[in-house]
Amino acid sequence: MPHIELPTAAPGILGLLQYRPDTARPLRELAEVLLRGPSTLSRGERELIAAYVSSRNDCQFCTRSHAACAAVQLPEGPPLVEQVLIESAEAPLPPKLAALLRIAAAVQKSGNAVTPELVADARAGGATDLEIHDTVLISALFCMYNRYVDGLATRTPTHSAAYRQLANRIAVEGYLADF
Amino acid sequence: MPHIELPTAAPGILGLLQYRPDTARPLRELAEVLLRGPSTLSRGERELIAAYVSSRNDCQFCTRSHAACAAVQLPEGPPLVEQVLIESAEAPLPPKLAALLRIAAAVQKSGNAVTPELVADARAGGATDLEIHDTVLISALFCMYNRYVDGLATRTPTHSAAYRQLANRIAVEGYLADF
Repeated sequence: MPHIELPTAAPGILGLLQYRPDTARPLRELAEVLLRGPSTLSRGERELIAAYVSSRNDCQFCTRSHAACAAVQLPEGPPLVEQVLIESAEAPLPPKLAALLRIAAAVQKSGNAVTPELVADARAGGATDLEIHDTVLISALFCMYNRYVDGLATRTPTHSAAYRQLANRIAVEGYLADF
Repeated sequence: MPHIELPTAAPGILGLLQYRPDTARPLRELAEVLLRGPSTLSRGERELIAAYVSSRNDCQFCTRSHAACAAVQLPEGPPLVEQVLIESAEAPLPPKLAALLRIAAAVQKSGNAVTPELVADARAGGATDLEIHDTVLISALFCMYNRYVDGLATRTPTHSAAYRQLANRIAVEGYLADF
């Protein structure tokens, strides 16, 4: 049961976005710009970073939502996403994406855990400054969303179908849509 | 030295806001709404939560900036802020603010660390649902800002005067001002 009274039974962050429209707007905008805006990282790759960080923060709602978003937008589909979440070091990823995920994992622990070596590895894999910037900010962003969602004990659906439906809507309508 | 090339030598998050205007706008809006918008928590109290969380995340730039913001906006001034950052359990705070800081500290660890007991304590101290919500979101927000600032190794001024100047400008102009 949520720690505060929410206006609807909408799960996860959705109920919180309805509760406080003033903060909902910039929270939605950040997801839209960083996960779906113009970028040399694909939408699927960015959703994979989001799911990976959420998994490391043990946030069920965000992990399952963004894993579903990654799965519908990555050509490799659900098997790759599952492998990244379970055993990221073994997953068959291109060197650039693997290095960016290592940066995201460092950020999840602490900003101070990002070393020049991790950044140099990402550059050696072909990452640009903007890709490194966006990876750090996406990881930091999910360290916020995850804490917001769990810190208020929001509702977490148990059935996979709920997350697939949400992911399909997000893939079409984006994060600014009001659902 | 920052991990990526920034357009100016502006310290901390300021250089990052100049680097990526698309993400800067919602990032600034969240700080403005949550730290300075209408609220039954004073601006000084909200800055104190921000400084406290930043201190626990070991983010020098954010800790010193928001400690300075709290110090200029709280009637008790710098001594109380210093005491909260050094030994929060001993600081002479009203029960509501003390309980909200305990919630903020839990969120800093993990959203899952916020217990019904911590929330009940805040309610017993007189906290409303919205105050509990905003405390969780402010703590989560600084878990993002702190990781963004340190994850890209931004410049951290050493002199206290730099933070006092910044705090004085923020107190007058707010977080939407472009500096």
